[in-house]
Amino acid sequence: MSELLDKAREVKEAAAVLAQLDAGEKNSALYRIAEALRENTDPIIEANSMDTELGRRAGMSASLLDRLTLNEARIMDIAAGVEKVAELHDPIGEVIEEFERPNGMIITKVRVPLGVIGLIYEARPNVTVDSAALSLKAGSGVILRGSDSAINSNKKLVEVIRAALSGTAVPPGCVTLIETGGHGVVDEMMNLTQYLDVLIPRGGAALISRVVNNSRVPVLETGSGNCHVYFHRDADPEMAENIIVNAKVQRPSVCNAAETLLVHRDFLPRVGPALQALKDRGVTIHGDDAIREIFPEALPATEEDYATEYLSLDIAVKTVDSLEGAIEHISGYGTKHTECIVTQDAAAAQKFLNEVDAACVNHNVSTRFTDGFEFGFGAEIGISTQKMHARGPMGLREITSYKYLVRGNGQVRG
Amino acid sequence: MSELLDKAREVKEAAAVLAQLDAGEKNSALYRIAEALRENTDPIIEANSMDTELGRRAGMSASLLDRLTLNEARIMDIAAGVEKVAELHDPIGEVIEEFERPNGMIITKVRVPLGVIGLIYEARPNVTVDSAALSLKAGSGVILRGSDSAINSNKKLVEVIRAALSGTAVPPGCVTLIETGGHGVVDEMMNLTQYLDVLIPRGGAALISRVVNNSRVPVLETGSGNCHVYFHRDADPEMAENIIVNAKVQRPSVCNAAETLLVHRDFLPRVGPALQALKDRGVTIHGDDAIREIFPEALPATEEDYATEYLSLDIAVKTVDSLEGAIEHISGYGTKHTECIVTQDAAAAQKFLNEVDAACVNHNVSTRFTDGFEFGFGAEIGISTQKMHARGPMGLREITSYKYLVRGNGQVRG
Repeated sequence: MSELLDKAREVKEAAAVLAQLDAGEKNSALYRIAEALRENTDPIIEANSMDTELGRRAGMSASLLDRLTLNEARIMDIAAGVEKVAELHDPIGEVIEEFERPNGMIITKVRVPLGVIGLIYEARPNVTVDSAALSLKAGSGVILRGSDSAINSNKKLVEVIRAALSGTAVPPGCVTLIETGGHGVVDEMMNLTQYLDVLIPRGGAALISRVVNNSRVPVLETGSGNCHVYFHRDADPEMAENIIVNAKVQRPSVCNAAETLLVHRDFLPRVGPALQALKDRGVTIHGDDAIREIFPEALPATEEDYATEYLSLDIAVKTVDSLEGAIEHISGYGTKHTECIVTQDAAAAQKFLNEVDAACVNHNVSTRFTDGFEFGFGAEIGISTQKMHARGPMGLREITSYKYLVRGNGQVRG
Repeated sequence: MSELLDKAREVKEAAAVLAQLDAGEKNSALYRIAEALRENTDPIIEANSMDTELGRRAGMSASLLDRLTLNEARIMDIAAGVEKVAELHDPIGEVIEEFERPNGMIITKVRVPLGVIGLIYEARPNVTVDSAALSLKAGSGVILRGSDSAINSNKKLVEVIRAALSGTAVPPGCVTLIETGGHGVVDEMMNLTQYLDVLIPRGGAALISRVVNNSRVPVLETGSGNCHVYFHRDADPEMAENIIVNAKVQRPSVCNAAETLLVHRDFLPRVGPALQALKDRGVTIHGDDAIREIFPEALPATEEDYATEYLSLDIAVKTVDSLEGAIEHISGYGTKHTECIVTQDAAAAQKFLNEVDAACVNHNVSTRFTDGFEFGFGAEIGISTQKMHARGPMGLREITSYKYLVRGNGQVRG
C-alpha cells in the first residue's frame, strides 16, 4: 500500500465529516491553527533551517532561498492569513437557486464542497498553510504535495496543523502531506480519480503544463499571463503612461503584469513619454520598426518577443493600424488572462470588451488588478486561465461545487 | 494537413463571429435550419438508407438499426426540436454579477460562450442536429464526430445545416463534421487543446471512460448512473411502491433509472407489495438473504449486482440496518448521479439530503426526474456526474463560461 493511497483514503473519510460542519466549527478550527502556528514558531523555524541549509549546500539561488525561508515575522503573517480566511463568508450551504416545477416538486441548488482537493506546488512553504486553510474553509479535504526542497518545513507545518485540529470538530485527517519524494508520486496523484475531485498546480509554467497535459483528475489551471495593454488612437496620454508603467513595473514577476504594449498608429506621436517613463524605471523595450523610429534605444522586437511572458523588466511594443488589429494580435498571442484597452472612446472600449476573449478585459484599468484580493474575494487560490468551472481570480466560492435537492410528495414521471 | 486541423481552424474563426451575435440573429438561423431539414426530408432519408443498408448487411442488431433509422416523422421531430431551442432564453450576455470596488472600478461578470465544443457520439443521427442547435444557441462552434455507422446520414444533415446557415448571420463554419473514420481521429480530438474548449462524449460507458481517461481537452462527463432508492423505516408503502416502480420500470435503459433498492430492516414487513409490483412488470429481483426470505423468487444478490448499472429490467435489493447504513452503501456504490429516500421523517430526509454526495438527491420523488426538460431547462446536452463546472442536468447555461469586464478611469495598483 502506497503512502498516497493510505492518506487519500483517510482524507476522503475526513472530508465527508468536514463537509457537514457549519461555519462556526470550521472557523474555530482555523483560529486554533493560527494560534498553534504562533506557539510553534521555534520548532517551525528549526525545521525550516534544515531545508535552507540543504538548499544552500545544494547551491540554491538567493531568490529561491529567500522564498524558502521562514522567520518569525513570516510565520506571524502566515498565522494572520489563516485568521483572515476564518473571517471570510462561508460559501457552503448557500442556496444558489430554488424553484418549483409544475408537478409540485421543489428543486434547490445548494453550494457544496468539492470533496478532496489535491495541491501540487513548489518551494514556498507558506502555500502549505494557505492552501490548507482555504480548502478547510471551503469544506474540502486537501492532499498537499510540496517541493522536496521544503519537505522538513512542510512536515512540521502539517504536524502543527493536524495537532491543532485534534481538539476541534474538524478531523485532523482533512489535511495531509505526501512525504514521498520524486516525480512518481505526482504521476500517481494525477491518476487518483477515485479519491481526488480536483488537482490544482501552483507554481511555474513547467509544473502547470505537466499537470494540465497529464492529469486524469480534473485540473484547475492557473498561471500564465501574456497580458497586453492597448493604447487606442485617442488614449489620454497621461492615463496611458500611468497604466502601462503600473502594469509593467509594479511587480514584473507576476502573471497579471503586462508583457506587450500595442499602440495605435495614430497615437505614435504621443507615445514617447510613456516609453521614456518605462525606460526610466529600468524596462528594456523591444519595439517594431515604427517604435524604433521614434525611440531608437528600443531593441528590435521579434515574433518570439510577442509570444513571451517575460516576467521581467522587458516589454514588447508593437504598432497596430486599428482596434481590430489590436484584437487580432491579442487573439493570436494572448493567454486569455487579462487584456486592457486605454481609450476615451466608449464604442471602441465596448467592442474591445465584447470581442477580446480573456478572463478579465479591462477598460482604463491596470492589468495588475486581476487578483482575488483586489476583486474583493478576500482570498485567492490562483487565477484561472481556463474556461471551464472558474475563470479569472479564484476565491473560496470557485473551489466549491453544487448539488440539487429535489423534494416532493411521491411524484413519479408519466 | 489533417481534415481535423483544417476544420478546427475554420470553426474557431467562425465561432468568434457567432459569439458576437444577438439572440435574434441566432434564432433566425435556427428557424432556417428547421425549415431546411423539412425541405430536405427526401435526400436525408436517402442518405440514411445507405447507412441502414450497410448496417443491416453488417448484422447490426434490430434495436441499433432502429436508433439509426430516420423517417419523415423523426425528421419532423428533429426539426421541431431545433425550433424549441430557438425559443429558449439566450444565456449569452447575461450579467451574472456587477460590483464596484473601493477604488471606483466596476467589475461586471458576464456570461460568454465556451468557444468551440467537440462532440463525440454514437449511432443516433438526431444527436448531430440536436447538438449543433444547442451549441449554436449557446454561442459556440461545434466539431461533430459521430459514429462511422451513421456517416452518410450525418454528412447529409450537416450539409443541410451549413447550406441553411449560408443565408444567415451565423457563419456556416460554426458547424462541422469530421468525416475521417476510425479511432485515430478521436485521439487527435482529445489532444486538440489549441482549438477545442471542451469535449463532450455522448454514448455508452466505454466511450465516455475512454474520453475521460485520455483527453487533454477538458471534458464534460455525462453518463453512468448507478442510482439508488432507499425505503426508510417509516416510508409510506404506497408511495414507496409507486416511486420504485417508476424509477425502475418507466424507462430502464436510461441513466436516471434506479438500479438498487435499499430497504430499512424495519420496513421489511411492508416491502412485499413493492417487490411483487416490480415482478409483475417483468423485473428480475436480485435480493440479499433477508429479501429472499420474504420474497423467495428473488435471485441471490452478489457484490457485483450492487456495483452494476443494469440498464435493464433487473434490480438489486439490499437490507440496511439504519439510515447511516443506506448512506454508506450509496457512498460505496453510487456514481454521484441521483439518489432517493422515501420517508415521512423530515429529520431523516434532511440528513440524507445533506450527506449523500450526488448531483441530485431526492426526497419522495422518483429518480427519473433528473433530466434537463423535467428541471425546466428546456434542453439537455447530458447529465453531468462530475463535480467541476456543471453537475446534474446540463442545459444551455451549463455549456457557457463567463468573463469579467473591468471598467475604470485610470486606476493603477498601489
